[in-house]
Amino acid sequence: NEKVTKPQAALDDPFANEPTRHPALVVRSARPFNAEPPADLLTANFITPNELFFTRNHLPVPTIDPATYRLEIVGEGLKPVSLSLQDLKTKFPRHTVTATIQCAGNRRAEMSAEKPTRGLGWGLAAISNAEWAGVYLADVLAAAGVDSEHTGQLRHVQLHGLDRDTHQAYSASIPIDRALNKHNQVLLAYEMNGTEIPRDHGYPVRVVVPGVVGARNVKWLGKITLAPEESDSIWQRKDYKGFCSSVDWDTVDKYYENTPAIQELPVQSAICEPRTGTLIRDKEVTLKGYAWSGGGRGIVRVDVSIDGGKTWQMAHIDALPADPSPSLSQSWAWTLWSAIVPIPEGTTELDLRCKAVDSSYNVQPDTILPGWNLRGVLTNAWHR
Amino acid sequence: NEKVTKPQAALDDPFANEPTRHPALVVRSARPFNAEPPADLLTANFITPNELFFTRNHLPVPTIDPATYRLEIVGEGLKPVSLSLQDLKTKFPRHTVTATIQCAGNRRAEMSAEKPTRGLGWGLAAISNAEWAGVYLADVLAAAGVDSEHTGQLRHVQLHGLDRDTHQAYSASIPIDRALNKHNQVLLAYEMNGTEIPRDHGYPVRVVVPGVVGARNVKWLGKITLAPEESDSIWQRKDYKGFCSSVDWDTVDKYYENTPAIQELPVQSAICEPRTGTLIRDKEVTLKGYAWSGGGRGIVRVDVSIDGGKTWQMAHIDALPADPSPSLSQSWAWTLWSAIVPIPEGTTELDLRCKAVDSSYNVQPDTILPGWNLRGVLTNAWHR
Ligand SMILES: [Mo]
Ligand SMILES: [Mo]
Repeated sequence: NEKVTKPQAALDDPFANEPTRHPALVVRSARPFNAEPPADLLTANFITPNELFFTRNHLPVPTIDPATYRLEIVGEGLKPVSLSLQDLKTKFPRHTVTATIQCAGNRRAEMSAEKPTRGLGWGLAAISNAEWAGVYLADVLAAAGVDSEHTGQLRHVQLHGLDRDTHQAYSASIPIDRALNKHNQVLLAYEMNGTEIPRDHGYPVRVVVPGVVGARNVKWLGKITLAPEESDSIWQRKDYKGFCSSVDWDTVDKYYENTPAIQELPVQSAICEPRTGTLIRDKEVTLKGYAWSGGGRGIVRVDVSIDGGKTWQMAHIDALPADPSPSLSQSWAWTLWSAIVPIPEGTTELDLRCKAVDSSYNVQPDTILPGWNLRGVLTNAWHR
Repeated sequence: NEKVTKPQAALDDPFANEPTRHPALVVRSARPFNAEPPADLLTANFITPNELFFTRNHLPVPTIDPATYRLEIVGEGLKPVSLSLQDLKTKFPRHTVTATIQCAGNRRAEMSAEKPTRGLGWGLAAISNAEWAGVYLADVLAAAGVDSEHTGQLRHVQLHGLDRDTHQAYSASIPIDRALNKHNQVLLAYEMNGTEIPRDHGYPVRVVVPGVVGARNVKWLGKITLAPEESDSIWQRKDYKGFCSSVDWDTVDKYYENTPAIQELPVQSAICEPRTGTLIRDKEVTLKGYAWSGGGRGIVRVDVSIDGGKTWQMAHIDALPADPSPSLSQSWAWTLWSAIVPIPEGTTELDLRCKAVDSSYNVQPDTILPGWNLRGVLTNAWHR
């Protein structure tokens, strides 16, 4: 029940009113709460159950009363708009989009193992897939008088969350072109897999920016600002950027400004089964995993190797999106795959790898270290 | 003069009427003519001079009289349209686009050196950059009654060249979404760098599909067919597809149908200077090269290494497109870069590498062999 009275404790402890979580989640940080499902549960379903969807919170989970909730839309030269939850649900067409969301830090633990980074030690499951329902951001912006003919200097859509602590609130932004082009299907979502969005995932309204890093999929959306500049939050201006491996904490300051904020993510894949240390008695081994790419680029192939990448074979693509023929440029959902690989006689140890190819024929790099960066984002080398 | 009388010899020898070419071009095949500029000339100019632009001909160069030239547009349920060159130049708005075109086989020689492939032995210069002028394909299709609301089953735009031999003519296709969305700036070009398009590059009209493999940038365009299917040419259905390294000439037949034709190309970069074998006497070395990615994704960084990829530093971005602020999703032109790298004392040999990062943070893979494919396309590993 989302309408519980905020207990007195919450005034002292900003984390006193956190939701209950599924016990199977692997917790990477308790406060704020960050957790991922176990790898083998991740590939059990094309649609990740809500209670197993990875959770990436930067701040305490806010308690929002749906009856008084408002979404404000402001911008220089615009007549401000204020919408209730009911307005969102009734004044705009409803759309559903099956989209995978991935944290920029997914697989950070592997990068940190090569050389330390600063950030949560995510395994391979800071990624999940859901069917989102809501309204197109483009339709809501049109109601505020913003369409592709009338953007002028308003080049960025700043998305402000209602999650905050004593000195900051969460905020991020996307370029206005992405927001206004309905091909991109950017949603203000009020449903996740057929139910209200759970509190951990942004109740009552979150932004879903298909194909774009989790950090821009702002949860608990309270305000949208159209502006000439990107959001000035640290999450837009400093974190969630990719730097050269030579940039360290002594030199990074001079690179923030000219390094673009991560938006679309690169091609990714990982092996969810078998786990390291599994004893294989058969003459063959079955591998399972996921593959995904940003920007709506579909997965055209997944290759697997059991000899460390010397030889490869193609995986079988298991689960396709509900729509059997999405355009290769609107492939927002991940691809689950499996492969049965014969084990040559005399083999004592398997050295598993996978790599995916997306519809622009981009591939994953062989190794992690050349892409090392001090924040440990964008780990997408061959998974082992 | 394009109106020369076709000599009698041409009736016997389909290559008797080929244009004159620049002597600096490195010829990979004389008939049909395929050639690339020397690497150091490639990076001398942001805009490649017409006479140095790489040439990829699949068939003899046709001789086309501009006075009688027609572009036919047909498709089931459409009223056929026939346009003269004058119609194209006067009935539709003129647009210019600076776009790099790259052959899918660029850098094939490196892949073949690892393990033989079938195809022309391109070095690193089967890529060039020009300013194209012409009309939007979307505008011409609209005149034929095709817009995004009225495509129905017509999902592909087949592009037919006027180049042919005794048993086939060149043809390829692009998805209709790419053609109709003007953001993609697909051109029917009649000018290249301020002059008529030279015969080797498609006189009088070629298609320029920014961000998409050269093979779809059909030259000597004579007919456009809107159809439910892709072009049935070998260049669409068999060549210009990327396969797993395990696929060989005995097994490839069963993979053609389910492997998507290459459209957008992956992120690419190469070192054009210094060449292998150069003696460096200084305490530093200057590297120069290009970087580019398909799909309009801009280059956000180029990293270089002189120790085989153990350590990296950022290159300086030299030449920007004429428009100083293209959207990162409409970056059709390449990026030229340079880097001055200090040489540690005692170094006897440099092991140069470069790798680029595009706006979706896709990167180039470390090595070539895992991406080996029997036709030798899509070589984009770190260049050395
Ligand atoms: Mo994230
Ligand atoms: Mo090509």
